[in-house]
Amino acid sequence: MADALKVGIAGLGTVGASLVRIIGARAKELSITCGRAIEITAVSARDRSRDRGVDLSGITWFDTPDAMAQEADIDVFVELIGGAEGAADTSVRAALRRGLHVVTANKALLARHGMEFAALAEDKGVLLNFEAAVAGGIPVIKALRESLTGNKVSRVYGIMNGTCNYILTRMEKEGLTFEDCLKEAQRLGYAEADPAFDIEGNDTAHKLAILTTLAFGTQIAADQIYLEGISNISIEDIGAAADLGYRIKLLGVAQRTESGIEQRVHPTMVPRDSVIAQVDGVTNAVAIESDILGELLMVGPGAGGDATASAVLGDIADIAKSRPGEQRVPVLGTPAKALAPYVRARMRSHEGGYFIRLTVADRTGVFASVASRMAENNISLESIVQRAASQTVAEARDSKTIILVTHATTEESVRNAVAAIKAESYLVGEPQVIRIERPKAF
Amino acid sequence: MADALKVGIAGLGTVGASLVRIIGARAKELSITCGRAIEITAVSARDRSRDRGVDLSGITWFDTPDAMAQEADIDVFVELIGGAEGAADTSVRAALRRGLHVVTANKALLARHGMEFAALAEDKGVLLNFEAAVAGGIPVIKALRESLTGNKVSRVYGIMNGTCNYILTRMEKEGLTFEDCLKEAQRLGYAEADPAFDIEGNDTAHKLAILTTLAFGTQIAADQIYLEGISNISIEDIGAAADLGYRIKLLGVAQRTESGIEQRVHPTMVPRDSVIAQVDGVTNAVAIESDILGELLMVGPGAGGDATASAVLGDIADIAKSRPGEQRVPVLGTPAKALAPYVRARMRSHEGGYFIRLTVADRTGVFASVASRMAENNISLESIVQRAASQTVAEARDSKTIILVTHATTEESVRNAVAAIKAESYLVGEPQVIRIERPKAF
Repeated sequence: MADALKVGIAGLGTVGASLVRIIGARAKELSITCGRAIEITAVSARDRSRDRGVDLSGITWFDTPDAMAQEADIDVFVELIGGAEGAADTSVRAALRRGLHVVTANKALLARHGMEFAALAEDKGVLLNFEAAVAGGIPVIKALRESLTGNKVSRVYGIMNGTCNYILTRMEKEGLTFEDCLKEAQRLGYAEADPAFDIEGNDTAHKLAILTTLAFGTQIAADQIYLEGISNISIEDIGAAADLGYRIKLLGVAQRTESGIEQRVHPTMVPRDSVIAQVDGVTNAVAIESDILGELLMVGPGAGGDATASAVLGDIADIAKSRPGEQRVPVLGTPAKALAPYVRARMRSHEGGYFIRLTVADRTGVFASVASRMAENNISLESIVQRAASQTVAEARDSKTIILVTHATTEESVRNAVAAIKAESYLVGEPQVIRIERPKAF
Repeated sequence: MADALKVGIAGLGTVGASLVRIIGARAKELSITCGRAIEITAVSARDRSRDRGVDLSGITWFDTPDAMAQEADIDVFVELIGGAEGAADTSVRAALRRGLHVVTANKALLARHGMEFAALAEDKGVLLNFEAAVAGGIPVIKALRESLTGNKVSRVYGIMNGTCNYILTRMEKEGLTFEDCLKEAQRLGYAEADPAFDIEGNDTAHKLAILTTLAFGTQIAADQIYLEGISNISIEDIGAAADLGYRIKLLGVAQRTESGIEQRVHPTMVPRDSVIAQVDGVTNAVAIESDILGELLMVGPGAGGDATASAVLGDIADIAKSRPGEQRVPVLGTPAKALAPYVRARMRSHEGGYFIRLTVADRTGVFASVASRMAENNISLESIVQRAASQTVAEARDSKTIILVTHATTEESVRNAVAAIKAESYLVGEPQVIRIERPKAF
């Protein structure tokens, strides 16, 4: 049997502690499966005295990740620190420069420095694995990077933030407001004390940027993503969506178009009878549409110490099973030097159409005016319904709700039509606009 | 750049022709991604003169797969012939003995000879890849063999036969009989002229046997599978299932128990609001429940020339990306020599419970008698409902239907209870018994 693979772990939070425990508990099975033992020989974390419930005896302690990356007797540097800058950045950089394999769960780091790190890893002939960085335990990186080789991907999209999906699911199932669900998510530890990063879509955007590069072979462009969070989704929207046969999910969507790549993160209506619409709570799901394979959907735990540790362990095992020396699985699916420049798609027609909810004064002619503003902007309507306004809207007395579902149309047309309606005197409150996304196959 | 990877393809049916076309069309992309070119240098098929719509110029033709395996100038032997014996068997054996990497889509071959071939490949230090053998384009082999390394799997189950799922979906959605749906499936090319292999569950059983070995590290035991097809599922069953909140799918289920491994293929009721219940038509789905990752579900095309070719191409690309010489990814997840003997689980309690449908004479006391027979066999009931019998059953005049849903109970108890009921004079026609399966997470 070959020499043991020596692993150093930087960061002993929930995921790190889980990983130490699992590698210890499954030592024998891992050595049989991988053809060599996997041994944790070094760790680094902030507080040496803290009890993490795992046995660290015999493991060399480093006070900083940088010191571990530079000095530890390890083959693989596992980064579980988090954050796009600081210790995560400097230690991963140092490890790659030293010619160590690197495993990371850090989407922010990859969204920021992924191309540089990929080039460095490929230059040094080492592996840089990051299955846990997107959709937790779901092996979507491996699917895009390996299984789909030779496929031309047309669209990749998914539910990639458990906090948002938990909130939307509870709002729908229990009729609770966004604020109440957020508080509950914080109480249960699903949402951070400062939840903005999750609920405004930034976390999903980091993950989407990585998937985009793997799917389309384009340079990472995390700052070229249209971003809209879930905080202004109301129970009325969820109810209206249900009436029309849809459910609302926060999706990250990346799509190949004739003029470039479109990346967007926003609340999205998906058909109620589609498989992705059934994905509830903190579960994640990623769909990939490609020309040879067709549509592939993967559903699983998007977060949690053990599920994330499972993905990290799979990455480490891949390194243990590979032969030392030059690696040939490109870090980002395509070799870093061969990644195409990212070209942002021009404004284009949104195939799925739009849902528009307006609260308007209950006056004669309003309905006709709304329909006219749509027609003037060449927006073709699939349906237009009028109903009594919700009791919960304070301004809603003597008002009514108009709900429109459009056929494929451009973002620009919708914005212009809504601006024209806002200029009229009959509008009460802010209009709500939600994109509709339709899975290709199921 | 390294030398081109030379590929020989045995079998030029739908999948083989699709593969030749794709490798030709994506030559440049593949050479960039894999770090070396992939070239088809040899092919073998029955009829040399047949037009397959692909360019075979410059490719060496072999009249038999055996000759190609023994003589062709190739690195990888791709077997797309089919069948557990004959040319598929002898040519794969010859290729492995010669030290060639092998890629196959042949579940019957692996279910029969998988362990022998795995040992041979590991002995020779070559790769034996077979992603396309189970659930077509869905990368479930890679997930089990690589991503889940270190996990202890408790259950793996799925919809793995598109023909059966197509028939059950149409029966439910359109109220057609099994026979009508089968004819339609044959007309559309989804079902063979002799459909027994699909509809009696044998095809699913072959795939399940492979998943079982990958999931539990036990020797392949394709002849140790409880098998029940879909041909006696009626519209009444589907309707009753719907009324109770379930849908009927043909599942292959493998489960770890205290006394061994349970493998079964049978029509199964799954909760209507579970994700797997939404998988319709020829689509496949595989769920894996494990202790670290949790529940993972993958949904995608289970058949079709292109989807299958995509999986075969992914397998070839993995070989192109790997370094020559000793391989370390065990063919069956665990090295062939370390696979544990298969121990069949003893009769045990079925957690999901059972659905039992009885047509009985419309007499006083029948309901009480049925309930008593259940109680005598220690079967606890979740529900028992009585309704007018379907109009379509000829014997059903003056009869009624009793539908029972049990809590967890043993197969033996159910069989005894049903036998006791059959001994009574009031039973009309055959009782129907369908197992209920509940996903762990979603």
